[in-house]
Amino acid sequence: MSSALCPGSFDPPTNGHLDVIERCAAIFDRLVVAVVANPSKTPMFGVEERVALLERATEGLANVEIHAFEGLLVDFAQLQAVDVLVKGLRAVTDFDYELQMAQMNHTLRNVDTLFIPTAPEWSYLSSSLVREVARLGGDVDTLVPAAVAGALKEKLT
Amino acid sequence: MSSALCPGSFDPPTNGHLDVIERCAAIFDRLVVAVVANPSKTPMFGVEERVALLERATEGLANVEIHAFEGLLVDFAQLQAVDVLVKGLRAVTDFDYELQMAQMNHTLRNVDTLFIPTAPEWSYLSSSLVREVARLGGDVDTLVPAAVAGALKEKLT
Amino acid sequence: MSSALCPGSFDPPTNGHLDVIERCAAIFDRLVVAVVANPSKTPMFGVEERVALLERATEGLANVEIHAFEGLLVDFAQLQAVDVLVKGLRAVTDFDYELQMAQMNHTLRNVDTLFIPTAPEWSYLSSSLVREVARLGGDVDTLVPAAVAGALKEKLT
Amino acid sequence: MSSALCPGSFDPPTNGHLDVIERCAAIFDRLVVAVVANPSKTPMFGVEERVALLERATEGLANVEIHAFEGLLVDFAQLQAVDVLVKGLRAVTDFDYELQMAQMNHTLRNVDTLFIPTAPEWSYLSSSLVREVARLGGDVDTLVPAAVAGALKEKLT
Amino acid sequence: MSSALCPGSFDPPTNGHLDVIERCAAIFDRLVVAVVANPSKTPMFGVEERVALLERATEGLANVEIHAFEGLLVDFAQLQAVDVLVKGLRAVTDFDYELQMAQMNHTLRNVDTLFIPTAPEWSYLSSSLVREVARLGGDVDTLVPAAVAGALKEKLT
Amino acid sequence: MSSALCPGSFDPPTNGHLDVIERCAAIFDRLVVAVVANPSKTPMFGVEERVALLERATEGLANVEIHAFEGLLVDFAQLQAVDVLVKGLRAVTDFDYELQMAQMNHTLRNVDTLFIPTAPEWSYLSSSLVREVARLGGDVDTLVPAAVAGALKEKLT
Repeated sequence: MSSALCPGSFDPPTNGHLDVIERCAAIFDRLVVAVVANPSKTPMFGVEERVALLERATEGLANVEIHAFEGLLVDFAQLQAVDVLVKGLRAVTDFDYELQMAQMNHTLRNVDTLFIPTAPEWSYLSSSLVREVARLGGDVDTLVPAAVAGALKEKLT
Repeated sequence: MSSALCPGSFDPPTNGHLDVIERCAAIFDRLVVAVVANPSKTPMFGVEERVALLERATEGLANVEIHAFEGLLVDFAQLQAVDVLVKGLRAVTDFDYELQMAQMNHTLRNVDTLFIPTAPEWSYLSSSLVREVARLGGDVDTLVPAAVAGALKEKLT
Repeated sequence: MSSALCPGSFDPPTNGHLDVIERCAAIFDRLVVAVVANPSKTPMFGVEERVALLERATEGLANVEIHAFEGLLVDFAQLQAVDVLVKGLRAVTDFDYELQMAQMNHTLRNVDTLFIPTAPEWSYLSSSLVREVARLGGDVDTLVPAAVAGALKEKLT
Repeated sequence: MSSALCPGSFDPPTNGHLDVIERCAAIFDRLVVAVVANPSKTPMFGVEERVALLERATEGLANVEIHAFEGLLVDFAQLQAVDVLVKGLRAVTDFDYELQMAQMNHTLRNVDTLFIPTAPEWSYLSSSLVREVARLGGDVDTLVPAAVAGALKEKLT
Repeated sequence: MSSALCPGSFDPPTNGHLDVIERCAAIFDRLVVAVVANPSKTPMFGVEERVALLERATEGLANVEIHAFEGLLVDFAQLQAVDVLVKGLRAVTDFDYELQMAQMNHTLRNVDTLFIPTAPEWSYLSSSLVREVARLGGDVDTLVPAAVAGALKEKLT
Repeated sequence: MSSALCPGSFDPPTNGHLDVIERCAAIFDRLVVAVVANPSKTPMFGVEERVALLERATEGLANVEIHAFEGLLVDFAQLQAVDVLVKGLRAVTDFDYELQMAQMNHTLRNVDTLFIPTAPEWSYLSSSLVREVARLGGDVDTLVPAAVAGALKEKLT
């Protein structure tokens, strides 16, 4: 049995995140989605909101669990007893940064990271771009799950 | 007839920006330079100042118009009825970010983006680097149009 | 009136190429597609075949012309009196190489190059990858125009 | 139960390959190492030699199988009924090429690819660099498994 | 006789910095380490602390001097009469930014920059990542000199 | 006293190479330019021709020596007793490959490599692009030293 942990801020979750979660849920026997409680910048959505949005968007996936965490990611990964971390990967600048994190995590606790490329149709999506488009009045209905689109509208009015 | 829109913060305009504008003005029948009124960070120059500096630097180019805009870039592009967006492109990290914006804009309104490489001699220039050099007392006269150099001196004394 | 020249080996043309040609034909008043007669490696398809495949795939586009050329691209661009070169752009390694070519062409004849990002769904496509998949018996019907798929089958049996 | 397939030319296997195989064997319940029988360039080692060198280097890993294959990788992956492909990843140029292959394989057969970063100490290693150093008389004993170092010496004398 | 200047924020110095300093001290006859007094973001350690930590970590290196500086780096380089700047280089995104700075410095004062790749084992290290790990309670003893590890603990309790 | 070795194929030397050699000669007390006698591809110019072209182009630089070498670069570097290798660096794809070579050379003989960015105006130049332009009848007089331009004309007629 193989288990993986997929960390992120998910502020908010996008269709790109969901695509990564669905594909990982099909590969691993158990998938823990780990929501960073306090990211370095003030998030638009509180951690409970982000957990709730992810739970709603993944309710059809039986082997997926959503958890919030604080502190070092590798400590939470050990607590959850997963075999590996898994991250979606979009672009070259992503890769450089993610590679640094992966090697740091390997150094700290001997935990490996696997990267899964995002589907081409979501390769341009990021939570920050979704927030910016929504703030400027753009339509994000095709970019995020329905519950997230609703939550963005509420938050911004 | 082909028309293009060249967006940016231009805080302040540099010789690299001017080089891109001049080359695009030679390719397209009409070129709209669109100045982001409220960029995400507080600009050094107000939007009217940035528009004025660009108007002065492009006064020899008959088919170039300078406009400020707020809101979604693609909405302003549709309002201006341009055929395409055009952006100067310097480096690999630029490219990744710009590619994301281009694909988002294509998704939102079916507007395409063309990229024009900056001339090698300006490939290291950016507005933020110019501001930093000027703040530390360096000479930026060879890096920006004369009016911009003057405005920087005024702003920083 | 703006005219552009889109150069390539097109060995064979892919859906990614066609997407770039269609979008450029919508931006420019006249689009010349220039087929390199003798690329550095021996092509799978002769230059007449590649021109014929492109003509068939673009027959609905009134402002597109297909030409073969030999010698320096910038000489052919001057002969065709186009305003600018235009190239599809897929990835970072593409960008580095294409930027070198663009700057060389600017140095040789003062001809500029604009880059248009390929649509996300074709971002992984290249002629060489199509040839390799077809050679190994894979199905390329969704990756190339119908006439190209037929020509590949004929060539490989 | 999760199974993965790790493809490559392995001409010859390096310590970097072995590091990737060992880490994947610790993550997945079953790991198939798939050796490309006929890579595009003529290999230094025949496919049986490469399979034998990998078998020797992995004999302590109970859940690892070494197989040669011909034809499309995704066909072999389906034949082996694995859940996912997995590849070591070293550098940015690797990433661009590997991402294209991953997206092509996803298009052809809906097979996903996970990437695992190579350990920092092997990040500069490649089979071609090992062959070049060995050909020029350099010592590769610290770069490849002992059996591979012996095979290289035999091959080059 | 050749002299070089190695600039940085060193907030705090890491084993990666020390590795670069040691290797440069072995190449050049004189090495000036120049500590940016007021980096753009508020540093965790004051400039005197950073100078002191570097002095302690380099006390075995006779040809190394540690200095703080304010203002333009190229002015300080001229004051110190060094032949060249030298910077450690980790990743692709580093390279793009550092290349811009190098070309700007060459334009401002005709001062060249040499880049030295960080050792693979420290390629994932940065001061900001060290600060983040330390803040989250992770152990950084293997990532920074002993005096820095002590100073971090003091600062964070 | 600091000495450096600058290796390359120089097939043929370009203005970009000369720029790198001149700037390194101003930094180091002694600069050895090392010409790979037998590069992996058949060169256009024999090794004696390449050495002669470099000698002619550097005759004003008293501290520069031109040598051909065979075998491992690091062995030749040790024979010449230099302190460090130095390479010009143009683009991101260059950097990835060069970084691998640098780390391999460090592993083999503990020899470090410093990188110097090419001047922006030569950032698009490479020997292979010069050969290709010359073969297609383009004018390379502004891209290479006069003696090289003459040698190319002779070679290609």
